[in-house]
Amino acid sequence: MPSVSASDSLSGYSVEVSQSVKVAVIGASGYTGAELLRVICDHPQMRLTAVFGYSSAGKSIGEVFASFAHLDLRLLSFDPDLVAEVAEVAFLALPHGATQEAADQLLTRGVKVIDLSADHRFDEPEMYAQVYGTEHTHPTRLREAVYGLPELRRNELRGASFVACPGCYPTSVTLAVAPALNAGLLANYEVIADCKSGISGAGRSARVGSLFSERGESMQGYKTLDHRHAPEIEMNLNRLLSGLDGDSRDQNLSETSRSKVWFSPHLVPMSRGILSTVYLRLSSSLTEIEVRDVYQQFYKDEPFVTFLDQGQHPTTLAVRGTNRCHIGLTVRSNLLVVHSAIDNLGKGAAGQAVQCFNLMQGLEEKTGLRSTALYP
Amino acid sequence: MPSVSASDSLSGYSVEVSQSVKVAVIGASGYTGAELLRVICDHPQMRLTAVFGYSSAGKSIGEVFASFAHLDLRLLSFDPDLVAEVAEVAFLALPHGATQEAADQLLTRGVKVIDLSADHRFDEPEMYAQVYGTEHTHPTRLREAVYGLPELRRNELRGASFVACPGCYPTSVTLAVAPALNAGLLANYEVIADCKSGISGAGRSARVGSLFSERGESMQGYKTLDHRHAPEIEMNLNRLLSGLDGDSRDQNLSETSRSKVWFSPHLVPMSRGILSTVYLRLSSSLTEIEVRDVYQQFYKDEPFVTFLDQGQHPTTLAVRGTNRCHIGLTVRSNLLVVHSAIDNLGKGAAGQAVQCFNLMQGLEEKTGLRSTALYP
Amino acid sequence: MPSVSASDSLSGYSVEVSQSVKVAVIGASGYTGAELLRVICDHPQMRLTAVFGYSSAGKSIGEVFASFAHLDLRLLSFDPDLVAEVAEVAFLALPHGATQEAADQLLTRGVKVIDLSADHRFDEPEMYAQVYGTEHTHPTRLREAVYGLPELRRNELRGASFVACPGCYPTSVTLAVAPALNAGLLANYEVIADCKSGISGAGRSARVGSLFSERGESMQGYKTLDHRHAPEIEMNLNRLLSGLDGDSRDQNLSETSRSKVWFSPHLVPMSRGILSTVYLRLSSSLTEIEVRDVYQQFYKDEPFVTFLDQGQHPTTLAVRGTNRCHIGLTVRSNLLVVHSAIDNLGKGAAGQAVQCFNLMQGLEEKTGLRSTALYP
Amino acid sequence: MPSVSASDSLSGYSVEVSQSVKVAVIGASGYTGAELLRVICDHPQMRLTAVFGYSSAGKSIGEVFASFAHLDLRLLSFDPDLVAEVAEVAFLALPHGATQEAADQLLTRGVKVIDLSADHRFDEPEMYAQVYGTEHTHPTRLREAVYGLPELRRNELRGASFVACPGCYPTSVTLAVAPALNAGLLANYEVIADCKSGISGAGRSARVGSLFSERGESMQGYKTLDHRHAPEIEMNLNRLLSGLDGDSRDQNLSETSRSKVWFSPHLVPMSRGILSTVYLRLSSSLTEIEVRDVYQQFYKDEPFVTFLDQGQHPTTLAVRGTNRCHIGLTVRSNLLVVHSAIDNLGKGAAGQAVQCFNLMQGLEEKTGLRSTALYP
Repeated sequence: MPSVSASDSLSGYSVEVSQSVKVAVIGASGYTGAELLRVICDHPQMRLTAVFGYSSAGKSIGEVFASFAHLDLRLLSFDPDLVAEVAEVAFLALPHGATQEAADQLLTRGVKVIDLSADHRFDEPEMYAQVYGTEHTHPTRLREAVYGLPELRRNELRGASFVACPGCYPTSVTLAVAPALNAGLLANYEVIADCKSGISGAGRSARVGSLFSERGESMQGYKTLDHRHAPEIEMNLNRLLSGLDGDSRDQNLSETSRSKVWFSPHLVPMSRGILSTVYLRLSSSLTEIEVRDVYQQFYKDEPFVTFLDQGQHPTTLAVRGTNRCHIGLTVRSNLLVVHSAIDNLGKGAAGQAVQCFNLMQGLEEKTGLRSTALYP
Repeated sequence: MPSVSASDSLSGYSVEVSQSVKVAVIGASGYTGAELLRVICDHPQMRLTAVFGYSSAGKSIGEVFASFAHLDLRLLSFDPDLVAEVAEVAFLALPHGATQEAADQLLTRGVKVIDLSADHRFDEPEMYAQVYGTEHTHPTRLREAVYGLPELRRNELRGASFVACPGCYPTSVTLAVAPALNAGLLANYEVIADCKSGISGAGRSARVGSLFSERGESMQGYKTLDHRHAPEIEMNLNRLLSGLDGDSRDQNLSETSRSKVWFSPHLVPMSRGILSTVYLRLSSSLTEIEVRDVYQQFYKDEPFVTFLDQGQHPTTLAVRGTNRCHIGLTVRSNLLVVHSAIDNLGKGAAGQAVQCFNLMQGLEEKTGLRSTALYP
Repeated sequence: MPSVSASDSLSGYSVEVSQSVKVAVIGASGYTGAELLRVICDHPQMRLTAVFGYSSAGKSIGEVFASFAHLDLRLLSFDPDLVAEVAEVAFLALPHGATQEAADQLLTRGVKVIDLSADHRFDEPEMYAQVYGTEHTHPTRLREAVYGLPELRRNELRGASFVACPGCYPTSVTLAVAPALNAGLLANYEVIADCKSGISGAGRSARVGSLFSERGESMQGYKTLDHRHAPEIEMNLNRLLSGLDGDSRDQNLSETSRSKVWFSPHLVPMSRGILSTVYLRLSSSLTEIEVRDVYQQFYKDEPFVTFLDQGQHPTTLAVRGTNRCHIGLTVRSNLLVVHSAIDNLGKGAAGQAVQCFNLMQGLEEKTGLRSTALYP
Repeated sequence: MPSVSASDSLSGYSVEVSQSVKVAVIGASGYTGAELLRVICDHPQMRLTAVFGYSSAGKSIGEVFASFAHLDLRLLSFDPDLVAEVAEVAFLALPHGATQEAADQLLTRGVKVIDLSADHRFDEPEMYAQVYGTEHTHPTRLREAVYGLPELRRNELRGASFVACPGCYPTSVTLAVAPALNAGLLANYEVIADCKSGISGAGRSARVGSLFSERGESMQGYKTLDHRHAPEIEMNLNRLLSGLDGDSRDQNLSETSRSKVWFSPHLVPMSRGILSTVYLRLSSSLTEIEVRDVYQQFYKDEPFVTFLDQGQHPTTLAVRGTNRCHIGLTVRSNLLVVHSAIDNLGKGAAGQAVQCFNLMQGLEEKTGLRSTALYP
């Protein structure tokens, strides 16, 4: 019984609470999977019953990541029936494309799914096909998945059984733009998003371009105006334009009232973090104080978004290892510049997935996500 | 009432448990103080009632460290009476030398003290004077303080009311040497300790030598064979030679049976972490397997020390942000090389302080210290 | 005679060419001064006769920078008469504000001056006063200084006796914008410049904000839309709009035909390098190929600017330690995104100063500046 | 004619001197090859006629390394006849094992060879077989090769036609130990060498263990007491013990008078540089001043080794990008600790190769190697 051995191995680390939820992680050899396991190990309402892999199956988790050397936990070969036997909720941290079949198999067996890949983020199969260049194998599931950005979709996430976690860049940019867009402050819906990401965003695969000696002292753009996260951001903004949490969706928007995102990502010599600098045009001569007030109001009750005081600039260091987002802004004339900082593996992936889990399960939203950033 | 406002500000983040202990932090503008606050904020059995500072008094903690931007907490000016009013336990993260008076004031008022400075680590006032070049102002307190290395002093720490936390290097080196020394494996008591530390070990003061542009791409030794942590390590090893947890102390050791530590520290271009490489001579032709068995046994029940499998090398990355210590070793002929990795701000400072707190308060030793390293 | 001792100390390192020019460096305790000395030591047509300082006077250069440990060279206290005695050309690497008096003293004594500070970059005293908040003490000298950007001002630099080197950001952004502006490709003269700089740009002064532990893993904006380099860039672009190398200057431009630079700088965890990402609006539906052709033509004969092939992105790593600038671009619809990478201490400071020196002295422009980037 | 096109492409960058030597580089896709090309491009007495590769043949050098984007130079497929046609001297920067055949082919055709691989460092075929686990395919060539460490083998290198460049660690450790060993200061011939290397030492191959996110914030040992460079260091020290530059070789040494090197390498989160900390036992109670005098004398005429003043510690930053070695030492009681810093790609590889070239060709030893370190 794998669930038993995994449970035993972790018994020292999980607070045994009667109402804890049995969870499994599928895919743990990448950075997102590792971060997910880290957060889950400290979550008081989860009980990790098993971890599944493909190429890593059979290895102990300590062999895959030295940070788990203290855990006596071995990766199992993915088997949907076994997952259904041992877990109520499965986190899928698999490569893009590999998740569609697995998610369907698990949902069919009654397992709730939180998908951290890019496979279920779009509402429309046509959109998926256009952006990813291949047909989605389970278009119905695509429509079922709730987009896991709690700041915009909290109500839908409560009680959901299938969640598609947003991309790291879309999380960062959407949170930077949403308050201004929502309050009608913008002259147009063009967004210039100059984003800077740590190297872990490129994953853990062995590539020359990700070597320490290639990335150290290297600041560089890539996929300029040609990255798959741009249409995902546009989808988010178009939904906002159609009414927050509404059903109308973006098909109702006329061409001129749709968002246009000019997305320009860059790689920064650091392991974690995304800083987005977003350039927006204000509709009229608003003062910085007025704009600040809009952002302050929008995020005042959000547990993980902090709007910084005037003159303060978000830094990735201050949110590292957390599910937090720091936002700051500057206005000069009709230009609004918004900075937003997240941890690409935290609020950009694993942290957000656990925040969604809390909403799905009706738990307090911050459960298991209380920690402050590692500084330095 | 400062305790109220501080308590309010943190109410969203602390689980209100009836038996939680009221704690205060004195000194929060350095990296140790910041790490301490980070750990305390997530500790389920502590209630942080106030944070005190000197130069930073009056500032909000978010102005001092951007990672606390979400906290509405202002530093108070240090006042022992106020601390005694609001806290049962005080963590002192003050500069070396500044702690002697404060510790005495608090202990006099019945506040338990956990001192993270170097002021109370030696047992003997003469030793303190010799190493630090000045007389200790409260020699009686020096003798009262229990040295906070749980792996060697657990029994004394249980129920203690005054703990002096070890230095970061001494923690790392002592844990690397203790099992071999304790089991009588060594041919002599000479230890060559080649230690490599992240830059946060140099503190947060503005110095040219700690600038990013000075330390990046710079691997460099400093204070070779001339660092104050060498006698602290020798004290630990001499105690072991006199019998673990015994009362005999090192004065009983003859000159030839005392330890001699050749300590050679280095700065590494990373923010956190200490890797110690320790060179020891084995007393007879022991095999690596026999030595490994001694280490395995010594640490098998320790919650925070992991002895790695053959061929695995500890890395600072795998313990970053935690209270863990990873140890690995290699034997060739009569040479034993031990590697030990800790986070200088974790097991080397704040994490260890909280581990000691748990022992002092009779809590489960891992309480509030469960997290896995941030990897990457 | 200081010139003799300095000359002796360097005799092993300079190729003695009869027509070599005697040069002195004033201000050598900052990173710009160190880089200048590095380049000068390898320049076959310069003979370094003395180095002058203020606070560092009396120290050996090896005490100031360990990379000069092999040089037996001591800093002298600045004395304009002594400089005039030993040098034909003086490089001034002093803090902003401190250079006005020194430059005037040297020019009066017939010494040619290359000023690396910000003190003589503007043409107009009013502009200087407006940007720097204080009156220029030698407004006549301000008008005499030739702005040292060879790609735009080569003819003026030939034979000049007083050169003001551009700022690092202005060099980077101006080179990114100039070809498009010059060819009339732009719909308007608004420039969004999102710039990312290594930490050495903040200088060598001891500040908490520049510590390794503060900047590692930290990507952060600063002085958003509020940096003194914005008007310097605008000056460059306005000159271009008035005709390249023309005399008309920007006063002739109507308000709507002046440039507007939205300048948003950021700090990147690396020691050297600036990557600028510049967003421009094309005037009509130009193809990327047409725009690429304009850039290719503009830079085809430039010895230090390389326009990269389609799909290649400039990286700071590939120009580190050199006087080179790498430029790449992307066009989608009417948006032109240009990336430009320089070394802030190379093409952004010391390298450019030496390139100007070569032009002033009628030398081949690449003399002493041949090296390839340190990669990695 | 490939030599013509390569020559043309570089004509702008090489000073045409009548006596310049035609050189070729074989293997340019690794970091050593790139550094070699960088140094060669600035060498006034070399004319690079062609670059050869295997997997990279057909690519432009700018595609392989972005730092060469300005060069119009295409890699040719390795062909010994073609090399012999275009070059007098060939630098071989090929992987270990791949060089034996190529070196033999070139030497047979009268081309002088400088081999930067590990293939020809040992004097004895038996030693090679023992360390590398396979028979050398050209044992006669093994004996012909002169070991390229000028500080110990200068006379043999003058006029040599086949040079085997030392490993990076052996260069660093041998230079740290040689003066003390040579002067008979040591109590025994045991050397503990705790070495710290930048990541470029692991090469440019795509491996998870060399990723930025794996190595950042990671200080870690590897191959402890089990690295192939240990016997190479021992060979150097044994030669010294047998008499400097003598013919006696190490076979004459009795077992107790042979050197024993305990070699413990580590990886440091930086791109370049090796810092070696070497622990030696002094034979009698020598003072630090006496030991310093021996080192000072040993290196006083060396163009690339700088012995630092008391209290100064070598840093890799101060030698980065150069062919320099900085050495410092500390003595306490009978322990001598020597620090030596080099650039693993400079004095540890390409710089040293060019220093050997200068000796082979009868040029001034510093020709083309004058530059100061890139600091920062």
